[in-house]
Amino acid sequence: MINQLITKIKKTGAPIVVGLDPMLKYIPEQIQKAAYAEYGETLEGAAEAIWQYNKGIVDAVWDLIPAVKPQVAMYEQFGIPGMIAFQKTVNYCKEKGLVVIGDIKRGDIGSTSEAYAVGHLGKVQVGSKSWYGFNEDFVTVNPYLGSDGVKPFIKVCQEEKKGIFVLVKTSNPSSGELQDKLVDGRPVYELVGEQVAAWGAECMGDSYSYVGAVVGATYPEQGRILRKVMPRTFILVPGYGAQGGKGADLVHFFNEDGLGAIINSSRGIIAAYQQEKYAQYGAANYADASRAAVIDMREDIAQALAAR
Amino acid sequence: MINQLITKIKKTGAPIVVGLDPMLKYIPEQIQKAAYAEYGETLEGAAEAIWQYNKGIVDAVWDLIPAVKPQVAMYEQFGIPGMIAFQKTVNYCKEKGLVVIGDIKRGDIGSTSEAYAVGHLGKVQVGSKSWYGFNEDFVTVNPYLGSDGVKPFIKVCQEEKKGIFVLVKTSNPSSGELQDKLVDGRPVYELVGEQVAAWGAECMGDSYSYVGAVVGATYPEQGRILRKVMPRTFILVPGYGAQGGKGADLVHFFNEDGLGAIINSSRGIIAAYQQEKYAQYGAANYADASRAAVIDMREDIAQALAAR
Repeated sequence: MINQLITKIKKTGAPIVVGLDPMLKYIPEQIQKAAYAEYGETLEGAAEAIWQYNKGIVDAVWDLIPAVKPQVAMYEQFGIPGMIAFQKTVNYCKEKGLVVIGDIKRGDIGSTSEAYAVGHLGKVQVGSKSWYGFNEDFVTVNPYLGSDGVKPFIKVCQEEKKGIFVLVKTSNPSSGELQDKLVDGRPVYELVGEQVAAWGAECMGDSYSYVGAVVGATYPEQGRILRKVMPRTFILVPGYGAQGGKGADLVHFFNEDGLGAIINSSRGIIAAYQQEKYAQYGAANYADASRAAVIDMREDIAQALAAR
Repeated sequence: MINQLITKIKKTGAPIVVGLDPMLKYIPEQIQKAAYAEYGETLEGAAEAIWQYNKGIVDAVWDLIPAVKPQVAMYEQFGIPGMIAFQKTVNYCKEKGLVVIGDIKRGDIGSTSEAYAVGHLGKVQVGSKSWYGFNEDFVTVNPYLGSDGVKPFIKVCQEEKKGIFVLVKTSNPSSGELQDKLVDGRPVYELVGEQVAAWGAECMGDSYSYVGAVVGATYPEQGRILRKVMPRTFILVPGYGAQGGKGADLVHFFNEDGLGAIINSSRGIIAAYQQEKYAQYGAANYADASRAAVIDMREDIAQALAAR
């Protein structure tokens, strides 16, 4: 799957993943109204609004991008109907040929991580049959529990030819509270990065490992360091746009081959029509605004990479 | 909710939480057969088997215990039908008057943690209405992202009078890879424990905080230290029984008042009939075996506490 992701990045010229993290306040009124008319102001109504909104965006941008990253929390908050909308979104994106990165940030003791891995990437055995659960292509994994929380994911990735991105240095303001603490003079994120590189060495695609890392765009200096610590690790970079990261901050996340990183933008793309820059599209054409925002983002990153 | 949990612990004399972590290999054949006869060897069939199995156990033990802890991964592995079984289990346990600790180990950047908090503990707004999602009483939270990953949970707990348990020192063999690393001569778990105590100081019930901690029974020495670092923090202690922890290992997790900790056992209770000790019950009476195992566990802990 890492090879497939890289092929798609080369083909689209866009090392971009669109974060499908729908919040109701992003969803145009006409979509919400139609969903509530059918299902009421219920969890089902919210789930329908999310799904229609996502579908509009995916239909507008799928040919420009290699991948999407639905954040499961934004669906899980609407209970079972929300999880059904998550499943529909994953399935639809896969039909469109997109690589789907489930942003689930799971991680637990061994047998429990195995259940998460099976449910999100692999197949679960029921009697004599086996079934996919949510069936994403990649998922994000939390490393706080150490190797035995991560290895069950790797095992399923090997079986299914899928991949993971392990949290190393997250994009949020307080990520340093734990991740920047110094251990023998070196920050925790560097130690976790080394660990990711070690796990990944056993899990190579053609040029990059399918054990990737998450490093926030909001920490470009740490990105530069981690790029060297993990040379064959693909880095998923959240925090571009709405969280404050810019194209110029991102160049050090990439290797000399122009690969090695994929940049996520969520709100900046999916709610582009709410920004002044794309306001002329209006809520009715929210998906066209998203398409314009993807093209601008592709350009911003390409320029930054060309200028380095 | 922390006050309610403590009241129930006193009333039952059992600082015990039963981990409802169903795996198909634990579920007696007669239950699986009946479920597959109705739904086939499908995700729906597995979910039905889990739900019937859980219901049998809850019906057999609810009067002996204050709380249950369903591990969501064991449901999530069966996709949407599994999540429906999770929801039914949560609802049923609440009807039985049990405190429900959702073992979800979520944690993300601020707005995303807020969505998890709303979905699992609080109510989500849909138009002019608001709805509970999964509606557990407590959830477990991963601290790798720092304060802004945890505080949204605390905010919802304040509004809803609920609680959390933050991972401090987990029970698994590799937990030390990150959690034992020394920062200025002190292990990471101690620093996280101090942070939990600080968050919790603002969130007090009558005698304990509703911001609790997870510390594994498999690390009794660390439990002793953390008990002192977090004197008003309630500690959720997994790892008893099948993972290797014994009653005598647990005494230092408790305060002098005999409170301050609640011990989880999962497989040791729910699959008790598969142990030699309870084999006489047989698969048909698996729930009676679980009841016997709860009584033995209560006795083991009481004796250990009396002997200290």
